[in-house]
Amino acid sequence: MSLNKMQTLLENIGKQAQISSKILANVETDKKNQALLHIANSLEKREAEILQANQKDLVSGKEKGLSNALMDRLLLTEKRIKGMADNLRDIAKLEDPIGEVVEKWRRPNGLEISKIRVPLGVIGIIYESRPNVTIDAAALCLKAGNAVILRGGSEAFHSNQILTTIAREALTEIDLPADLINLIPTTDRLAVQVMLKLRKYINLLIPRGGAGLIQMVVENSSIPVIETGVGNCHIYVDETADLMMALKIIKNSKVQRPGVCNAMETLLVHQEIAEEFLPLLAETLWKAGVELRCCMKSFNILDKIYSPIKKILPAEETDWETEYLDLILAVKIVMNIDETLNHIAQYGTSHSEAIITQDFQRSREFQKHVDAAVVYVNASTRFTDGSQFGMGGEIGISTQKLHARGPMGLKELTSTKYLIFGEGQIRK
Amino acid sequence: MSLNKMQTLLENIGKQAQISSKILANVETDKKNQALLHIANSLEKREAEILQANQKDLVSGKEKGLSNALMDRLLLTEKRIKGMADNLRDIAKLEDPIGEVVEKWRRPNGLEISKIRVPLGVIGIIYESRPNVTIDAAALCLKAGNAVILRGGSEAFHSNQILTTIAREALTEIDLPADLINLIPTTDRLAVQVMLKLRKYINLLIPRGGAGLIQMVVENSSIPVIETGVGNCHIYVDETADLMMALKIIKNSKVQRPGVCNAMETLLVHQEIAEEFLPLLAETLWKAGVELRCCMKSFNILDKIYSPIKKILPAEETDWETEYLDLILAVKIVMNIDETLNHIAQYGTSHSEAIITQDFQRSREFQKHVDAAVVYVNASTRFTDGSQFGMGGEIGISTQKLHARGPMGLKELTSTKYLIFGEGQIRK
Repeated sequence: MSLNKMQTLLENIGKQAQISSKILANVETDKKNQALLHIANSLEKREAEILQANQKDLVSGKEKGLSNALMDRLLLTEKRIKGMADNLRDIAKLEDPIGEVVEKWRRPNGLEISKIRVPLGVIGIIYESRPNVTIDAAALCLKAGNAVILRGGSEAFHSNQILTTIAREALTEIDLPADLINLIPTTDRLAVQVMLKLRKYINLLIPRGGAGLIQMVVENSSIPVIETGVGNCHIYVDETADLMMALKIIKNSKVQRPGVCNAMETLLVHQEIAEEFLPLLAETLWKAGVELRCCMKSFNILDKIYSPIKKILPAEETDWETEYLDLILAVKIVMNIDETLNHIAQYGTSHSEAIITQDFQRSREFQKHVDAAVVYVNASTRFTDGSQFGMGGEIGISTQKLHARGPMGLKELTSTKYLIFGEGQIRK
Repeated sequence: MSLNKMQTLLENIGKQAQISSKILANVETDKKNQALLHIANSLEKREAEILQANQKDLVSGKEKGLSNALMDRLLLTEKRIKGMADNLRDIAKLEDPIGEVVEKWRRPNGLEISKIRVPLGVIGIIYESRPNVTIDAAALCLKAGNAVILRGGSEAFHSNQILTTIAREALTEIDLPADLINLIPTTDRLAVQVMLKLRKYINLLIPRGGAGLIQMVVENSSIPVIETGVGNCHIYVDETADLMMALKIIKNSKVQRPGVCNAMETLLVHQEIAEEFLPLLAETLWKAGVELRCCMKSFNILDKIYSPIKKILPAEETDWETEYLDLILAVKIVMNIDETLNHIAQYGTSHSEAIITQDFQRSREFQKHVDAAVVYVNASTRFTDGSQFGMGGEIGISTQKLHARGPMGLKELTSTKYLIFGEGQIRK
């Protein structure tokens, strides 16, 4: 497609989305919930169509030689469709953030100022393979009063297309504008370049995916962006830690679901407990199938005990930087908390960081100095998640400092405006 | 300067600012206030140096043929220096936003989650002529725990340089890092291009100035930006309005200080009261030196009465789009509130909009449908201001929806982080 044609196509989508978002901004909560429930029912009713479209994506995915993990992410089943529908029903149950009076006060001159929550307008989401993100993201945006423009991965194009078609038809059936939910109708990469400049129509862009995608969006977008999800998360085991608690938390943080952003990637261990703790750690994690990549000191400790029965792997500089998203853990012995804080400042991605300690002062120091969205004492990093926080759904984990930081629920998909009530006040 | 040299220069400033900001993040309130008061005293003590540097800018301003208005903005006097110092003392009195527990809750598994307020880090400010912005902006950033990198207008370069030098020396004298306050040490335009890409070191960019500057920053920055200050503000006089109240509010909104962003630029009048109201309006505003630019209908009403004694000026399409920042008002007769809402949606800049009405339903409709930072009923648009809101100072008026909307006080210069306290919780 030519640049001109693409611009016309996307501007039209943007315009229609903006018009629709203005209508939705003043739609009552009940009606929005009705929409979510109706989409849920439609998805279940039209399961056969969804599976058929998904089949097309699976076939071309196989042809392209996608990995098993990617093929699994792409796959829709009856159960997964039911899951999407149930998720819509859960979002319908969440409290509507729109209209909330965030603050209200009165000035000495009698002016009443209230700050109320309003929708952002139009939200653009650029994401990779999983087609259930399509419905999740659209539903969260809709509940928070926003229209959405979705740009999914090309591998899931047919699945995304049928899902959005069903959702749009459901909206029309209950007299809401179909253009509240939009999918960019082409896999042409040019569309993303054009989308990133649609500042006139899109109020916020959320990229969801790998570091490369996010970097590209941040560098090229003229629309405000919220960075999400790259998590090179650390756990630091202090010399006062309860070692059994540490083992339990580390195992959970690494193994329970290694492919997600709140899984831990690097373990830092205080030198005083390293000799005692590392063998316990290694045996626990090896049993769970985790590969360890060890700094020189931890290498020596483990090698001395386990060689030649077990081959210990040395860590390289890149290991400290890597978000493995896999059953691999980098291990480093540190001299003290200062070395820990410096290591995290240097290699962390400001996502989730944890300390295991019994020392009060040490816990305070860690929480004070670590600059991340979520800083834990004695708990698994896996809790950095909208549902685990009690927000209901989430659209991602913000790792930046502006507007939203940490799990982004419905409130994070809104803005505010000030309403001022007077009786003729003028400024002196 | 070559691009390479400029990059090295700015990266060094960025690095030092970032290091300093990390120190400041954990400095107690008392110490920050001490810094503000010490800078205030230093400015007063070193008045002669400031006036001397300012003189250089005034001389070259005159050579460049700056307008009287610009020369006045550039001018520093004893009184203005005293004003800057007093403003620092006022900021020292404001509540410190850092450390505030914004929310705190407990999850069923016993995890305690608290959301606390933390600094943003390093804030970049790109602004035009007034040198007092240099001290104001630096002080607000400092009180909110942030380092600042300032890029002032070239006309005020010598003034800005001495002001920041004094502030930096004052910081050093009380053992805080001088690099909390940084001025880009060159008027080379290339510096701005390089600054806009310093995402690694700058957490937020705030452009303060005309629409051109803001547009340039928004389009080229890879750092998150908050747009401030372009205000094409409207007042709508409904047919139920108290006309005397309307006159008083309109005069205040247009005349009290026409050169600022919260001054009104276009008046919309309901057709039913136009014949009665417009002559009152015209006589009041003419007396105050305001030029009216009238739509065809309002032109006819006024022309019939005042011609040939007074020449009535017709409005052109551009008048609806223009932020005059001057004693000029565009006037348009509208058929009803829908036409009003459409006009504001088309030409407004989402800053401040007001309705004058005695009708409850009409006031609700206006506040519901106008998408702006501040929406007034029966009050002057001139109240859109940090001090008038009771925030103390402000760093600008955000006209975008992300992070901050409306007057930006200290809280708007902060981020948050989550602290989580556990006793070994893991995710099931």
